[in-house]
Amino acid sequence: MYILNEQLQQDTVMLGQFPLCDVLLMNDTQYPWVILVPRRASIREAFHLSADEQHQLSDESAYVSQRMSDFYEAESMNVAALGNVVAQLHMHHVVRKLDDATWPKPVWGAKPAVAYDKAALKQQVESLQRLFSDKFASPEQAENGDDLY
Amino acid sequence: MYILNEQLQQDTVMLGQFPLCDVLLMNDTQYPWVILVPRRASIREAFHLSADEQHQLSDESAYVSQRMSDFYEAESMNVAALGNVVAQLHMHHVVRKLDDATWPKPVWGAKPAVAYDKAALKQQVESLQRLFSDKFASPEQAENGDDLY
Repeated sequence: MYILNEQLQQDTVMLGQFPLCDVLLMNDTQYPWVILVPRRASIREAFHLSADEQHQLSDESAYVSQRMSDFYEAESMNVAALGNVVAQLHMHHVVRKLDDATWPKPVWGAKPAVAYDKAALKQQVESLQRLFSDKFASPEQAENGDDLY
Repeated sequence: MYILNEQLQQDTVMLGQFPLCDVLLMNDTQYPWVILVPRRASIREAFHLSADEQHQLSDESAYVSQRMSDFYEAESMNVAALGNVVAQLHMHHVVRKLDDATWPKPVWGAKPAVAYDKAALKQQVESLQRLFSDKFASPEQAENGDDLY
């Protein structure tokens, strides 16, 4: 059974569900940062997914990257599955800008996260839910993810 | 026209060509590290590729990850497209182990590369060419990459 890793639960806020992945906002004001987690049990690497699921992950990742890149006018999108700290497969999508806190270095392990305050978090969640609204699954679909594509 | 970025040319050795991507070995003995570069002009992000090319990149990336993970008994594979230093789309595949030089931190910008000596480089190139041999395109195919899938 799929259960979202505890560390990811602690570090993020749930935005919604795509056909394959849970969509999470990293609670760090330093970068717009979204994490996709395929709702599949015991998956540590993308190649552990089925061929169809791999393509679906690629589609959902490209969608998130393109939407965020356009909306935030990113210099580049950092898209990565690392798994050194949290083994459960999760794919980072981080908007990078020339004047961000760690440019051009990677963000992981670089600076401690700076959590959103309550009002800013609410605003950021709503903003991203609007940005991704045409790909969010209905609650019924999300429960039956295997039949969606 | 597609030209491999100069920095990537300097830092890597060409292993061969998959249907979509050039396959490069990072010249750094600290980690088995392979980079895939789609042979397409002016591509900075995966979402700039066509839908078919995105799936092909996903397939080639999963193939490299799985082969390297099995062969080197990786603790995890770090798979990432960053683009902060070299804008041309290139996807890293880095074998990570609990006792490697920077575990569990990311490898980028962490430690200066340690180049292979001539004999070790030849051995590593041949080893990886064998590992990936059933996906390398023939020279004729590689020249006409658009018609391959």
